[in-house]
Amino acid sequence: MNAEIISVGTEIILGDILNTHSQYLSQELAHLGINVYYQTAVGDNDKRFTSILKTAISRSDLIILTGGLGPTTDDITKEVACELLGVKCYLDENILNKIKTYFEKSGRIMSNNNTKQAMVPENSIVLENNCGTAPGFIINKDGKTVVLLPGPPRELRPMFEEKVKPYLKYNSKDVIVSKNVRVFGIGESDLEPKISKIVKQVNPTVALYAKEGEVLIRVTSKASDEKEANLLIDKTIDELYSILGNYIYGINKESLQQVLVEELIEQNKTIATAESCTGGMLASKLTQISGVSSVFNMGVVTYENWVKRDLIDVTEESLSKYGAVSQEVATEMATGLSKKSSADFSVSITGIAGPNGGSEEKPVGTVYIAVCHKQKVWCKRYNFARNKNEREYIRNLACLNAMNMIRLTLIDEKIFEDNYI
Amino acid sequence: MNAEIISVGTEIILGDILNTHSQYLSQELAHLGINVYYQTAVGDNDKRFTSILKTAISRSDLIILTGGLGPTTDDITKEVACELLGVKCYLDENILNKIKTYFEKSGRIMSNNNTKQAMVPENSIVLENNCGTAPGFIINKDGKTVVLLPGPPRELRPMFEEKVKPYLKYNSKDVIVSKNVRVFGIGESDLEPKISKIVKQVNPTVALYAKEGEVLIRVTSKASDEKEANLLIDKTIDELYSILGNYIYGINKESLQQVLVEELIEQNKTIATAESCTGGMLASKLTQISGVSSVFNMGVVTYENWVKRDLIDVTEESLSKYGAVSQEVATEMATGLSKKSSADFSVSITGIAGPNGGSEEKPVGTVYIAVCHKQKVWCKRYNFARNKNEREYIRNLACLNAMNMIRLTLIDEKIFEDNYI
Repeated sequence: MNAEIISVGTEIILGDILNTHSQYLSQELAHLGINVYYQTAVGDNDKRFTSILKTAISRSDLIILTGGLGPTTDDITKEVACELLGVKCYLDENILNKIKTYFEKSGRIMSNNNTKQAMVPENSIVLENNCGTAPGFIINKDGKTVVLLPGPPRELRPMFEEKVKPYLKYNSKDVIVSKNVRVFGIGESDLEPKISKIVKQVNPTVALYAKEGEVLIRVTSKASDEKEANLLIDKTIDELYSILGNYIYGINKESLQQVLVEELIEQNKTIATAESCTGGMLASKLTQISGVSSVFNMGVVTYENWVKRDLIDVTEESLSKYGAVSQEVATEMATGLSKKSSADFSVSITGIAGPNGGSEEKPVGTVYIAVCHKQKVWCKRYNFARNKNEREYIRNLACLNAMNMIRLTLIDEKIFEDNYI
Repeated sequence: MNAEIISVGTEIILGDILNTHSQYLSQELAHLGINVYYQTAVGDNDKRFTSILKTAISRSDLIILTGGLGPTTDDITKEVACELLGVKCYLDENILNKIKTYFEKSGRIMSNNNTKQAMVPENSIVLENNCGTAPGFIINKDGKTVVLLPGPPRELRPMFEEKVKPYLKYNSKDVIVSKNVRVFGIGESDLEPKISKIVKQVNPTVALYAKEGEVLIRVTSKASDEKEANLLIDKTIDELYSILGNYIYGINKESLQQVLVEELIEQNKTIATAESCTGGMLASKLTQISGVSSVFNMGVVTYENWVKRDLIDVTEESLSKYGAVSQEVATEMATGLSKKSSADFSVSITGIAGPNGGSEEKPVGTVYIAVCHKQKVWCKRYNFARNKNEREYIRNLACLNAMNMIRLTLIDEKIFEDNYI
């Protein structure tokens, strides 16, 4: 089945908003084994949209339209599609009442314009919208399937996920399943040769995506049922584990902080943070995760030297002798924090995020991370600079590596023991 | 002049990468007064790309192609475009030498494939690539202009900025200038009626964009020269100031934190933070800004109650009597932090970011923010919940509002005086 995606909206072709629908829908359709050949964006213009849709119907089996289902006269998607397909619309009282109720709930009065949204193409499948007023539709006509989805992502995504995907799956012979393998601590170029044999596989397919500081491996299988597809995937994931071991930090996980916080909760271990160059970013990442309060007890952002001394007992001697960005200060920050917090893991970060402050000996990107655990400290020096003006990149990588050092210790205490000072 | 953008690359239609070029180029072309009517993405497929380009040439004056200028056989953009336009290519020794040098510099050897990148369409303008090996081209043929740009954003953007934009400007009669007016503290729906007269203007045009917690007003003017265009814009901005006053936090600024940190530096005032639900996010936002170290002295993340007592002297009495999320505790956090930090502004945030922990009296989204300044405290209760599962939204809005309270005090001490307890 060949598909294409048409995004309707003047705000897209003016560049006012980023078209994220095309990527989302293309990914989802790829997982379903449907080939997407074209993505098009066109403004809310009757003539131009008509011509685009006409071409699409002539060359594709499935056409997904996004946007232009709103109540104003600008919104033309449904009207143009029905006109072109020769499908009539009727007013659906049920939908009209739902829209009315939607407005009443939020204390507003429905305007007459919204009646337009209750017009339903004949013989279409209505896709209920639980996050807005515009319903979506699936129209089948002359062997072509046209899907109409509302523009706002928070309406489109649940509608696609809950209604369109099951429909397309039901009409497809094969089941496609994907799992995401999350890898940290090895770059894409070092990783690829290690798993080149697996990458060349046909089913499951294995695709690599480099993200900032990490790599995502997507394993996708095609089979006649879900159980078989999962078996195929899990076999490949086992092989990946046997090659990559602890570089893999999670399967189908959102982020390193999610995995770390879950593991801390699981092992009932607490964490505290002392940050200099990352300035609270590590604490902020950890506290993104709901439930973190049972394992995170305190964080300090010790930007000035006197704060390092005053809050976490860094010595004046180390600060003046080695400088704030040094192994000695990172270590003292971690041990001082450990005394203050009594956390199982006290982690400190001190570095030069730039763009200013670098020197030959300690260029921009130099970061020391120390983890104090059971009164011992594992301290590591990193250099994260790619080019000079990447303050947020350096800060982000420092946080990720700090989390990874703790994750590794949680998995295998021996890793910590091999490294502590 | 009517334009369209065609992005060539299988990785786009598979959804592996997000197509950010289309937005970037559409925005840039809109600023130049060029109408973009279509954006298309198509895979590295000879037949399908040829048909798309053929249609584009038939309906548009300017066609911008991105991607597919690489050295492999997959890369077909230049070949297809030249074939279709009837333009021959020749090998340019200068470009070939540049590519060779590029490889030598990075210690690699140029493969024979790269010779392909030194093939130049006859009578075209060559766009040198300072960030990669593939040059871009501007081809003019039969009244149509076709621009070929490399796919990687770090190559495409400087090439467009430095070479294509001046070319298009030179060939355009009018100058288009835009300025961004950043607004905080008033929602889009309350803002629009206040400035409806200005929004209806034709030159400059005024467009509103709602961002999380703030509104961006883009003012764009068209004139025969830049000076006149700027005069028109500045007149409209003056009108906006007279209506919106302190709601406007900056012109052409990146973020609230940038404006706040710049203002603190300007006034030589220091800041310290004590965060509960935002967990370091406020400190992290402030420390995004290079140069913040001269005004930010410390931050604490007081997640557990004993940390609030121990680090910033919150009383046990207030914690047990009013709860950690209360005006009393927020106030004590700010005053305790002020004693510790001696900062000119000590700000505290305590709230319920959810999804758990809410109650009828203090639902998810309830946040208290307190600013201690000259031994006095301005404390405000907010509710940021849109729906239950928006932990990051609530945390972000808390940080923005905390920064805004300090910004307002810096602008006008009287705002603080009118509000302190």
